Amino acid sequence: MSEYDANVQTALDMAAARAATTLNMANLQEYLHGRAQNWQRRTDVVRVLSADAAFDKTEDNMTRAERFMRGQAMTRRLHELQNELGWTNDDIGLAMSVLDSPLPLTLHFQAFEPIFKLQASPTLLAEYGPLIATRGILGCYLQTELAHGTAWWIGAAGRTATHGVVQAQLVLPEGEDGSLEDHKPLPGIVLGDQGAPKSLGGFAATDNGFVRFDRVRVPLKNMLSRFARVTEEGDYVRPPHDKLGYGGYARTFCSDCLYLMYMLTRSPSHATAQPPPSLSVTPPVRRQGTRGPDGLERQVITYPSCTDGCSPSSPRIRVPSVANPAARLSAGDTSLLAELHATTAGLKVLTSSASIADVETARRSAGGHGFSAAAGLGRIYAEVLPSATYEGDNYVLDQQVVRAALKAYKALNSSANDLPPSSAYLQRLMDVNDGPPRIKFDSLGPDAVKLAPPLDNVIAQLNGVVALLEWRAALVVRELANNRKSLDVGSGFADADATRVARAVTDAFVAGRVADMARNMERDGLRAGDAAVVEQLLMLYLLTSAEAALPDLLAHGLLCGPGEVAGLRRAISALCAALVPHAIGLSDAFGFTDWELDSALGVYDGRVYEALWERAQREPLNEKEVTDAYEESIKWVLQNGQRRAAMHAAAKL
Amino acid sequence: MSEYDANVQTALDMAAARAATTLNMANLQEYLHGRAQNWQRRTDVVRVLSADAAFDKTEDNMTRAERFMRGQAMTRRLHELQNELGWTNDDIGLAMSVLDSPLPLTLHFQAFEPIFKLQASPTLLAEYGPLIATRGILGCYLQTELAHGTAWWIGAAGRTATHGVVQAQLVLPEGEDGSLEDHKPLPGIVLGDQGAPKSLGGFAATDNGFVRFDRVRVPLKNMLSRFARVTEEGDYVRPPHDKLGYGGYARTFCSDCLYLMYMLTRSPSHATAQPPPSLSVTPPVRRQGTRGPDGLERQVITYPSCTDGCSPSSPRIRVPSVANPAARLSAGDTSLLAELHATTAGLKVLTSSASIADVETARRSAGGHGFSAAAGLGRIYAEVLPSATYEGDNYVLDQQVVRAALKAYKALNSSANDLPPSSAYLQRLMDVNDGPPRIKFDSLGPDAVKLAPPLDNVIAQLNGVVALLEWRAALVVRELANNRKSLDVGSGFADADATRVARAVTDAFVAGRVADMARNMERDGLRAGDAAVVEQLLMLYLLTSAEAALPDLLAHGLLCGPGEVAGLRRAISALCAALVPHAIGLSDAFGFTDWELDSALGVYDGRVYEALWERAQREPLNEKEVTDAYEESIKWVLQNGQRRAAMHAAAKL
Ligand SMILES: Cc1cc2nc3c(=O)[nH]c(=O)nc-3n(C[C@H](O)[C@H](O)[C@H](O)COP(=O)(O)OP(=O)(O)OC[C@H]3O[C@@H](n4cnc5c(N)ncnc54)[C@H](O)[C@@H]3O)c2cc1C
Ligand SMILES: Cc1cc2nc3c(=O)[nH]c(=O)nc-3n(C[C@H](O)[C@H](O)[C@H](O)COP(=O)(O)OP(=O)(O)OC[C@H]3O[C@@H](n4cnc5c(N)ncnc54)[C@H](O)[C@@H]3O)c2cc1C
Repeated sequence: MSEYDANVQTALDMAAARAATTLNMANLQEYLHGRAQNWQRRTDVVRVLSADAAFDKTEDNMTRAERFMRGQAMTRRLHELQNELGWTNDDIGLAMSVLDSPLPLTLHFQAFEPIFKLQASPTLLAEYGPLIATRGILGCYLQTELAHGTAWWIGAAGRTATHGVVQAQLVLPEGEDGSLEDHKPLPGIVLGDQGAPKSLGGFAATDNGFVRFDRVRVPLKNMLSRFARVTEEGDYVRPPHDKLGYGGYARTFCSDCLYLMYMLTRSPSHATAQPPPSLSVTPPVRRQGTRGPDGLERQVITYPSCTDGCSPSSPRIRVPSVANPAARLSAGDTSLLAELHATTAGLKVLTSSASIADVETARRSAGGHGFSAAAGLGRIYAEVLPSATYEGDNYVLDQQVVRAALKAYKALNSSANDLPPSSAYLQRLMDVNDGPPRIKFDSLGPDAVKLAPPLDNVIAQLNGVVALLEWRAALVVRELANNRKSLDVGSGFADADATRVARAVTDAFVAGRVADMARNMERDGLRAGDAAVVEQLLMLYLLTSAEAALPDLLAHGLLCGPGEVAGLRRAISALCAALVPHAIGLSDAFGFTDWELDSALGVYDGRVYEALWERAQREPLNEKEVTDAYEESIKWVLQNGQRRAAMHAAAKL
Repeated sequence: MSEYDANVQTALDMAAARAATTLNMANLQEYLHGRAQNWQRRTDVVRVLSADAAFDKTEDNMTRAERFMRGQAMTRRLHELQNELGWTNDDIGLAMSVLDSPLPLTLHFQAFEPIFKLQASPTLLAEYGPLIATRGILGCYLQTELAHGTAWWIGAAGRTATHGVVQAQLVLPEGEDGSLEDHKPLPGIVLGDQGAPKSLGGFAATDNGFVRFDRVRVPLKNMLSRFARVTEEGDYVRPPHDKLGYGGYARTFCSDCLYLMYMLTRSPSHATAQPPPSLSVTPPVRRQGTRGPDGLERQVITYPSCTDGCSPSSPRIRVPSVANPAARLSAGDTSLLAELHATTAGLKVLTSSASIADVETARRSAGGHGFSAAAGLGRIYAEVLPSATYEGDNYVLDQQVVRAALKAYKALNSSANDLPPSSAYLQRLMDVNDGPPRIKFDSLGPDAVKLAPPLDNVIAQLNGVVALLEWRAALVVRELANNRKSLDVGSGFADADATRVARAVTDAFVAGRVADMARNMERDGLRAGDAAVVEQLLMLYLLTSAEAALPDLLAHGLLCGPGEVAGLRRAISALCAALVPHAIGLSDAFGFTDWELDSALGVYDGRVYEALWERAQREPLNEKEVTDAYEESIKWVLQNGQRRAAMHAAAKL
């Protein structure tokens, strides 16, 4: 088969895959992006960016310093576009979310501004609010320490930011803004980029920096004193709730919903999502192995490894929103804090770990191509990876989830009638008449969730798996509560336990939301045919959660023996197989353009080999037919070897 | 605590950690490196390299093209050193194994040369053997196809190699070696580098290339015709065994033992090993969190997350060696092939997946620092990652392991008395009087493997866990055999099953070798005190294997109920805690120098913050106090924002 043939075949395969799906694109796209306007807005922004030279993606071979400069040029260009096209700040946020790599500006939008807004006194808000809203000053958020007195890892602090929130202190000298004149650090402050490149080439455009403070005085008025404050007399006034002194959570409070775009997300806590391209695009067109009756090699997507790579599902979940949480907090209503903390901590761990693992699964199931930069998957991986660490180290958050669960368990008898969503699963222990369900998994395959079965049936079946996951959480929390010596970190439970138990708690919470999603599909505007496919995805999600929970399910007798386990696995395989024909449709529904994906494997037209070939021609090493290394190094090695071989032959004679 | 204090404290912590271990370094080093001479050889080679400017590691900011050129210069320098210092080819191999990233030369040594030696006819061997042995020609190995007629991913083919093994064909024109004059590709051959950078910046120095053949004729004499050949009349003569036509396995045959350096290995199939530096070095010196009675913050290594990061153990296993396999193969004795294939395929999957996962665990448990290039862990990750794909895609190998296991199961009744090591576990099913063991895990903690208990006790306890893992393999293989429809890929078992079942089979095989290791420690020269610590590591390895196998163990009733599971986990935690005091000692025993580790977190003297600080100063972005991006981009953004904020204020008035 020649090069040309292969491309024709892959294009045909792709067209066939597209034709196979019964999904309605417009309908699904709106569902995924929330509302039709969102989808339209996104399309507009992407069109502008992809036509603009500042956002060109063909520069494979930049040094890190060049990537930083390019990131700054992009930031400027985004603001020029704002001026020219009347973009809102949300549009800029949207634009940043579709770029390759995080810009230093991210920290301004996602850490500096919301924390300032939540924590600053009205006077300070009036003074700096407008400058912050227009990027008249550029901020960073300084929390992580190297040693005390030295902040480290601070995004945008190296060379970009003019201001920073230091825990509860705004770094500003009294009165004048000296630093705005020449971008030099103020006296007493040593700062810089902490060194490049970061692991795996990630975060290249961001100047994560160090900042050392040496006797820097911050005037009282610059304290973020909405909740905690210091009086003129120098007395400290406590905030209404401990956690309100700590700015780090502001971000979670400020968005009224959180999307889980499991597996399909580039950045776990954003509303936008990017599917790893190979997930849905390469496998259908790659053929490898023995020939079938059609004389063609087998499509690799029909190998189970690829199906598994494709299987992790993509529930998009709205966490029950709290009306206007920021306002309620400002008004001193702190009752929600513990609940918000318990759920967001668990969800942060779940989404970040799952995104990282799933991108890697997709990459690996693409064979060698997954390791090629042309696939675009390694790039996504490098950007997603640190999300396990920043905004709360996952190991540490796990322990907080467990601590909250143990508290809820302890309070169970007194408050059983009014459990908040985060601990609703504990209710299972109180329903004395209702034991754990025994599920016939073989009935949960695609047949159970066929095109448009009576919705009630599907819900009932999903609810069975939800009950299983809730029981599991309840039993492992009870077990831990009975065995632990105290709530303290490290003393009562090992970390591996914390990770496992926290996962059980979060799985139970998410399972409940998945059932909500299934119930609300009609309300959310999904046609029946599309809803049936999404229900299969949701079922698959719940069943794979159950499979990952097997050690708990089996240990606690919620599942028994090899037969039940095999049934669960058969249901998963059957659902995967049933979803394969929709893989392209589901992926297309996200609506990512070739420019966004920037992946030779993910080209919309399926002409993958051509795209790979073209990228290879861009490689600077290919500019000269004979590399400069030949004269410099290779020739010497060859001639040296030939000389030695000849000597060897001569010695033998 | 100032910067200075922190460094003093970390240095003290490191010294204290070193003082705490009772391990004998010289003894352990020899044990790990095989023999005293090996260790000495390694030390000598590292000393030479680390003092040589060609191998300097401070060049963080190179482009990929620069890394390629640097790799070629290193290759030349290695050969100059060979001439100057009389190094053997093994010394060059040793030197390559301690460099940062794979050189194109790796393919010459590890693929081209062994396959040529195994497969070439005596005439061809005489003609090219000496040139290959001296690098008078440079080779590559062309197996992977993009589309037919185009090889892809071929290491060294882009710009380095002069010759290649194409499956069974040597790419050479009749008679003259035209390409050796000017390093240009021969007529009919288009080749080049397939594009950079590879994912995550890995393999930057290697020119993985594409090669397109257009009507290239290879003269008959250049066929590698030791086993399969074509006669002058054009008839094909089959090899004595199918697999002998396929060169890919030559490498495994040619080494008589295979080391598993689990978790502590940079490259899974090499005899050399590099511990991820943070594993053992950072945690003891990083302090973070609440202060203890000594007024110091807690050392993060005392957090369970870090202990877990450190826990995966490091058994070094000699696979039962087959005397002179290459010679036996050449003599037509192919009886060993199936056995060799079954074990090496499983071990390849196990070592590559575990190395990848464990390096990432170590990276993540170092918090933010793990994501810093200064840690050196991301670099190792990027180089190890593709090992899941090359030399046999792990998904595909899993299926081959399972197919071999099913065959062995089928043949069980006829051959039960003479099971080869790869299927020894099946013997369990034949011992009708001997059921699966019931293990009291709580007795397997560090108390069981205390300093110098009677060796027989320890062995008995290890054997119990070995039996558990062998039973598990036997039961899952039997289950699969009973349920499968055929041996064919994809038709009988899903891929997830293949991965799980293959793992069970390999775990059982490795567990047997672990028990061998424990039995042979004295013979292998380990003192009693050191042996006790290594035994704890081996026990930990077996217990974590059992923990990962919980779904199988519980489903098949080999473990029952939450109590037994908790006991297993308690034994693991207790062993981890007991090993923490030896973490530094164990790591030191590998003997890696600061130059090799190239990690600010891993500096021998423990002055980690100083090392991080110094690296940050190397960052080119820090050369100018005010970045060029200020004049180019940032200033415009700030002034634009200030203008808009002022307009906003004016509009309000
Ligand atoms: C860094 C690096 C260096 C390399 N160096 C070389 C080299 O020097 N020489 C060389 O020849 N090659 C080299 N390779 C190529 C490597 O050997 C292949 O990438 C690997 O064998 C997988 O083949 P593929 O990429 O064609 O993937 P594919 O075969 O296309 O696999 C894609 C997916 O399909 C699945 N699949 C494919 N076939 C089957 C099957 N029969 N049954 C079930 N599932 C299947 C795979 O598991 C995978 O998930 C290198 C690769 C890398 C990443
Ligand atoms: C790309 C990136 C961007 C970042 N941007 C910013 C930024 O803009 N601003 C900012 O302030 N920070 C930023 N950070 C820093 C990040 O928030 C920290 O790295 C993270 O909070 C972990 O802290 P650490 O690095 O000090 O690790 P450590 O706290 O030293 O943790 C090391 C290990 O100890 C364990 N451990 C630590 N404390 C405990 C405990 N109490 N209980 C149990 N286990 C514990 C951890 O789980 C981990 O395994 C960024 C980090 C990265 C990687």
